[in-house]
Amino acid sequence: MSQHRHPGAPGRAGAVPALPDLPEATVARLPEYLRALHQLAEAGHETISSEGLATAAGVNSAKLRKDLSHLGSYGTRGVGYDVALLVDQIEFVLGLTQRRGVALVGIGNLGHALAGYAGFASRGFRVAALFDADPARVGEEINGLIVRHVDELPRAAVEESIAIGVIATPAAAAQRVADQLVAAGVTSILNFAPCVLSVPEGVDVRKVDLAIELQILSFHEHRKASLTALPATGGAGFTALPGGLAAPGTQEAVGT
Amino acid sequence: MSQHRHPGAPGRAGAVPALPDLPEATVARLPEYLRALHQLAEAGHETISSEGLATAAGVNSAKLRKDLSHLGSYGTRGVGYDVALLVDQIEFVLGLTQRRGVALVGIGNLGHALAGYAGFASRGFRVAALFDADPARVGEEINGLIVRHVDELPRAAVEESIAIGVIATPAAAAQRVADQLVAAGVTSILNFAPCVLSVPEGVDVRKVDLAIELQILSFHEHRKASLTALPATGGAGFTALPGGLAAPGTQEAVGT
Repeated sequence: MSQHRHPGAPGRAGAVPALPDLPEATVARLPEYLRALHQLAEAGHETISSEGLATAAGVNSAKLRKDLSHLGSYGTRGVGYDVALLVDQIEFVLGLTQRRGVALVGIGNLGHALAGYAGFASRGFRVAALFDADPARVGEEINGLIVRHVDELPRAAVEESIAIGVIATPAAAAQRVADQLVAAGVTSILNFAPCVLSVPEGVDVRKVDLAIELQILSFHEHRKASLTALPATGGAGFTALPGGLAAPGTQEAVGT
Repeated sequence: MSQHRHPGAPGRAGAVPALPDLPEATVARLPEYLRALHQLAEAGHETISSEGLATAAGVNSAKLRKDLSHLGSYGTRGVGYDVALLVDQIEFVLGLTQRRGVALVGIGNLGHALAGYAGFASRGFRVAALFDADPARVGEEINGLIVRHVDELPRAAVEESIAIGVIATPAAAAQRVADQLVAAGVTSILNFAPCVLSVPEGVDVRKVDLAIELQILSFHEHRKASLTALPATGGAGFTALPGGLAAPGTQEAVGT
């Protein structure tokens, strides 16, 4: 990383916006830009147009330019963005310069997969501790880490400077684990258990529910099928719902 | 499921909106409502207030009422929503009445976890086929299914009526698998590989990137730390970015 870098748009340095002002959707796209930029850097690109970066990240370029303008990055007309500088800016904003410690709780199938996931290490994180409540799993070694009993979580979270807790337990155990993480001072949780967690203000929870992802795709499948099945009358794909007009292929009575 | 149900709001039956008009954010929340409703039904609730359902689903109740109004569900004042009716409506909209077939491609750690995930079956899906390119994995039995070679995908996708393909391969293999799924007529893909897929129009791709979820949490950790570290001057948490004003703790020159 070279020193003495300059912002893309001269004269805008004083207008750099603050971290707290970034829209949530922008925050969610920054990691995509970062991944694309790392690939471009590996392929030897020193600069990249907004269109090129947008394509690599799978977003539209107007949205990308707007997102990056929140970081004070406007690129240079005819040249584009400085790839290395933009990597630095995004890694700084995302707080990835610190290799935050991650604790993984629940070492079933999914927990095993997460513990062995190389993408965490290569993208700014350090899986620092593994926990399970099942004595049969405690003591198992995965990628050089020994699975500890979840009762050791409070002490280990402090010792290992855990910043993020990942919950991969069954739903019934998840709230208790969340409470333990919060009590140990962890303020960011990634929850794979299919349930809603209650946490105090100031604790961020993100949720990944694999069945929900499939259900959202199912909606789109259903919609595509309903559009295909319709005669081309200009009625444009209206499909009635149960409880309303009769749904196609059902025998339900039509409501009032 | 009982017959002859009526919509929550008498007289609104004719105003039932169409599937294609649902906002994407509403579609993403419907599975959360569904999960909460199933739990409420198991706990013996026949009706539920919008506040009660919103709490169980972890959203605010105004948003929930607006989402459900898109389905023509307005609840009944003083009574709330009919739990069983709302389950039927959401399952219909999400196309979950059909138990769509899911093919899983890439049976590494994550693929194993997904193949063994009971949540798919209990929430409307049928894992119907497993594929891998590694001959050492072909033939392995997981939950009663034999892992097949990925070259068998085109034929198997038709035989098993695969509606959704789940890609859990390394990034380098993902595009080829996506092409094979699309060629086999699959129009919905859930991608766990950390890369952007190119697919023809009409094919829906959803992406789950576990490192991205951690990076988003990292942003919030970083933001919380930057707010805590600031003196209370009314400057309200403004943190400079690299390339703009000097970042705290770095030695970079300040840009023009």
